Amino acid sequence: MSKETNEKIKEADKYFNCSDKERTAFELGIKLGALFHQFIGSPVSSKNIHVLEEAMEKTTESQAFVKSASVTIDPEGNDDSKMGPFDYKTLQEDMLEAEIVVEYDGITAVGEMRYIDELEYPLMYLKEFK
Amino acid sequence: MSKETNEKIKEADKYFNCSDKERTAFELGIKLGALFHQFIGSPVSSKNIHVLEEAMEKTTESQAFVKSASVTIDPEGNDDSKMGPFDYKTLQEDMLEAEIVVEYDGITAVGEMRYIDELEYPLMYLKEFK
Amino acid sequence: MSKETNEKIKEADKYFNCSDKERTAFELGIKLGALFHQFIGSPVSSKNIHVLEEAMEKTTESQAFVKSASVTIDPEGNDDSKMGPFDYKTLQEDMLEAEIVVEYDGITAVGEMRYIDELEYPLMYLKEFK
Amino acid sequence: MSKETNEKIKEADKYFNCSDKERTAFELGIKLGALFHQFIGSPVSSKNIHVLEEAMEKTTESQAFVKSASVTIDPEGNDDSKMGPFDYKTLQEDMLEAEIVVEYDGITAVGEMRYIDELEYPLMYLKEFK
Repeated sequence: MSKETNEKIKEADKYFNCSDKERTAFELGIKLGALFHQFIGSPVSSKNIHVLEEAMEKTTESQAFVKSASVTIDPEGNDDSKMGPFDYKTLQEDMLEAEIVVEYDGITAVGEMRYIDELEYPLMYLKEFK
Repeated sequence: MSKETNEKIKEADKYFNCSDKERTAFELGIKLGALFHQFIGSPVSSKNIHVLEEAMEKTTESQAFVKSASVTIDPEGNDDSKMGPFDYKTLQEDMLEAEIVVEYDGITAVGEMRYIDELEYPLMYLKEFK
Repeated sequence: MSKETNEKIKEADKYFNCSDKERTAFELGIKLGALFHQFIGSPVSSKNIHVLEEAMEKTTESQAFVKSASVTIDPEGNDDSKMGPFDYKTLQEDMLEAEIVVEYDGITAVGEMRYIDELEYPLMYLKEFK
Repeated sequence: MSKETNEKIKEADKYFNCSDKERTAFELGIKLGALFHQFIGSPVSSKNIHVLEEAMEKTTESQAFVKSASVTIDPEGNDDSKMGPFDYKTLQEDMLEAEIVVEYDGITAVGEMRYIDELEYPLMYLKEFK
């Protein structure tokens, strides 16, 4: 990390009033919320799933404090529907699974997002601190 | 809150491995990340600023655990540029300020998002627990 | 329309190589594509449907050449599912209907977007010139 | 193209009331509006520009009637600002250039989107029919 980046991070820290673990949890939440709301609605076909997954991973990994991101798009989602007449769908909540690992000041937190059938909901949760 | 909602929240809780304060911080992060990445790029003109602000507030407040949301759009943003020839811009990061209050299990956290000049960055931060 | 706006529109016209009717159709397509991809994924609950509809209409109407926009969100969408345990959903393609009217140089075109069951697809179409 | 796709396209055609050239212009407009409003706000760093460009191209190419799409992201945009302290920005209108080629029923149209300094505006235009 460059000296300039380090100084900016210290400058940003002044705005926070919470523990390092709470900060780590907060940063993880930001990244999961961002991933979902940026990319839901993206065009998806059998021909571009992997490049879209990779773009979602790499753009997430470019954000502050992200160690890694893993994204899986299941075109069939929750209801086994086909890709439609044009082999084309828009990315929907039940098609998306992601794991993001965030590290802040030596604390690592793992978060996941996936559609939970019993909840009828794409849940984002903090799976564990490491 | 309905009995069904309560049961679903308890069901969702099982996926988490963190303290209540860390959970509150996580939920706050999700909402700030969602707000930014859902609405950045929206068409803005002098005629629709308030209705867009209100929609951003109300949609945020409809999410789980959100007590209140306050959004301010400054069409001039950081650089005092005008609204352009068509009295029209797309919503950009330096035009947006927001405060979101989240409550989880009796713990309240206040988060903000705004463009910080020294950081050259739209910072999202956890301002305080209440 | 201000003199400055008029001059900018003439300046923009130089980039186009098509008839006025084709231009009108093109502008209509832009607005339908924008509406869908900007707002799909927005949080929706029974409490904010109307304010979100209004924001989608007003932001669309603020764009160049748009005469009017009408948006209807049906929270039940195509499959009569409920709003979920949190009275909350994200805006999905089968929940959204819109009509946009565009006028360019005296030519008016009406476009619609809605989920067509037989097509399994949210179709955007040019319904008529007026 | 599969027989099923062909039949669905004919079914969709019934909703339109315009010439084939106007239809081509309309489809081109949809794709340009979609590209902009889906991806504006995406995280961008020097490490993920090419994978994001490629995802934007491939997802566009997966849509009906698109022959090709070419996307260029210039991280410096219009104002030569740097990538910021975290080597990270969100995708903004003056950073984005795109060309999309659409073919409908043998008619080919080329569209472009780029920030025009004199217009202070990211213009989408129909460059030519081929």
